[in-house]
Amino acid sequence: MRGTGKADVFVMLAHPVGHAKSPGMFNEIFEQKGLDSLMVPLSCRPEDFETFWAGITAAENIRGVIISVPYKTAVYHKCAAAHDRAARVQSANSVRRQADGSWYADNFDGVGFIDGLKAGGHQIAGRRILQVGAGGAGASLAYCLAEAGAEEIRLADIDADRAGKLAVLVAKAFPKCRIQVGAADPSGMHMAINATPVGMHGGDPLPLDVSKLTPDMTVVDIIMEPAETALLRAGRERGCRIQPGRPMMDFQVRGMSEFFDIERKDRGNG
Amino acid sequence: MRGTGKADVFVMLAHPVGHAKSPGMFNEIFEQKGLDSLMVPLSCRPEDFETFWAGITAAENIRGVIISVPYKTAVYHKCAAAHDRAARVQSANSVRRQADGSWYADNFDGVGFIDGLKAGGHQIAGRRILQVGAGGAGASLAYCLAEAGAEEIRLADIDADRAGKLAVLVAKAFPKCRIQVGAADPSGMHMAINATPVGMHGGDPLPLDVSKLTPDMTVVDIIMEPAETALLRAGRERGCRIQPGRPMMDFQVRGMSEFFDIERKDRGNG
Repeated sequence: MRGTGKADVFVMLAHPVGHAKSPGMFNEIFEQKGLDSLMVPLSCRPEDFETFWAGITAAENIRGVIISVPYKTAVYHKCAAAHDRAARVQSANSVRRQADGSWYADNFDGVGFIDGLKAGGHQIAGRRILQVGAGGAGASLAYCLAEAGAEEIRLADIDADRAGKLAVLVAKAFPKCRIQVGAADPSGMHMAINATPVGMHGGDPLPLDVSKLTPDMTVVDIIMEPAETALLRAGRERGCRIQPGRPMMDFQVRGMSEFFDIERKDRGNG
Repeated sequence: MRGTGKADVFVMLAHPVGHAKSPGMFNEIFEQKGLDSLMVPLSCRPEDFETFWAGITAAENIRGVIISVPYKTAVYHKCAAAHDRAARVQSANSVRRQADGSWYADNFDGVGFIDGLKAGGHQIAGRRILQVGAGGAGASLAYCLAEAGAEEIRLADIDADRAGKLAVLVAKAFPKCRIQVGAADPSGMHMAINATPVGMHGGDPLPLDVSKLTPDMTVVDIIMEPAETALLRAGRERGCRIQPGRPMMDFQVRGMSEFFDIERKDRGNG
């Protein structure tokens, strides 16, 4: 049975949290695998975050937390240790309890994205890539694209300063990758990626100049809903290969499941 | 589906929490009723209770909490308002969120016990009752037995001072009921109730003098596991009517479900 007093407890934290996909996905996994585990969605107001997080930490049987907007950076700074891919963007989207009760941070945004691209048959090594969006998710993506061997990344963001700062950091970490800041124009690129929320809502503008898309390009969106954004539709109509947002989520869930060791044998919180 | 981002969230708090029955019972109810709700078992150490409770209160989508040992009194004192049956024993076993975010306390120990007795066909009005145990659950029971019209209650506790204090309080609240403090001897009584944990573990002594049980008596235990305690077995062997602990739990869950309004229509935490 799922959800007894001995259940392994995981939290999904966001504000608001109603739209979050991971609780439903994880609870379905727990049910399919016959695990006595729960992922509970929790929300707190930003002014209550410190109090909330202290309480979560005091709850000794909470084994892990998935974090989304707006708490990824705040939670990262609560952690005693972190994987490099969380540390370099100062952002945690998953934390797990360590033996001494403190938290260890990781971030699967970038690796989930890369794994999703690879599973879709899209090559990254040696490619020239336009990435629109240098915010939270964008930062993770840029590092991971460079790490995966991208030849060149052009970063475009409405906040040019933010794009510039990210470019400097990624270039320093992966000097073999050429990083530039530029316009949201895919000309000369193999791949164009939307790493912004633009396209989630009807009436949103296009995140990049689709008139420059050519059939040899791959168009990628990290947005999951709608499954086919206006950008992806434009890419499809221009003969491009397209990659939707859903695989990034699926591969993140896979990575988080391993990170949380959801099938561990030494179960039970007494 | 149960357990999405929009799920109504309830907490079961105890330390330890692994033995708690209510999470499994409520999660089964949620599943049977097709509700997108979760009850999550949480545990914190006593020295962390203040921090834990502040965090639970900051989690804006937690709608209710069920409380067990050792936190019923501590949680009661965190509440802004309370039902009289919680206030008179200064103990909360269920709290729900009020519109302003504060907590309202109730306690279903006593009413669940009384409802279980009535459902089992056992009369309370006009009866003389031996109650062994004047602790947390015992206090709720004594008030509710007096309220239900018991003619006399004899309170027995290894801590005679505790029994005496409870007797004074219950007598003041229900002056028509004769309350005395005495030995764990059922002689002259209609009903003998064990309201202590004695009998949960093999090798426990009997909580009362079973040699004085006669076939006209009813023997009641609040212990759920084992289903038949040594006391109940002794009562059965002496021809008494017996009442096990499980109905008290079942009727508490029914009361809590109404208290939490688990089937409310204005669902979703956004």
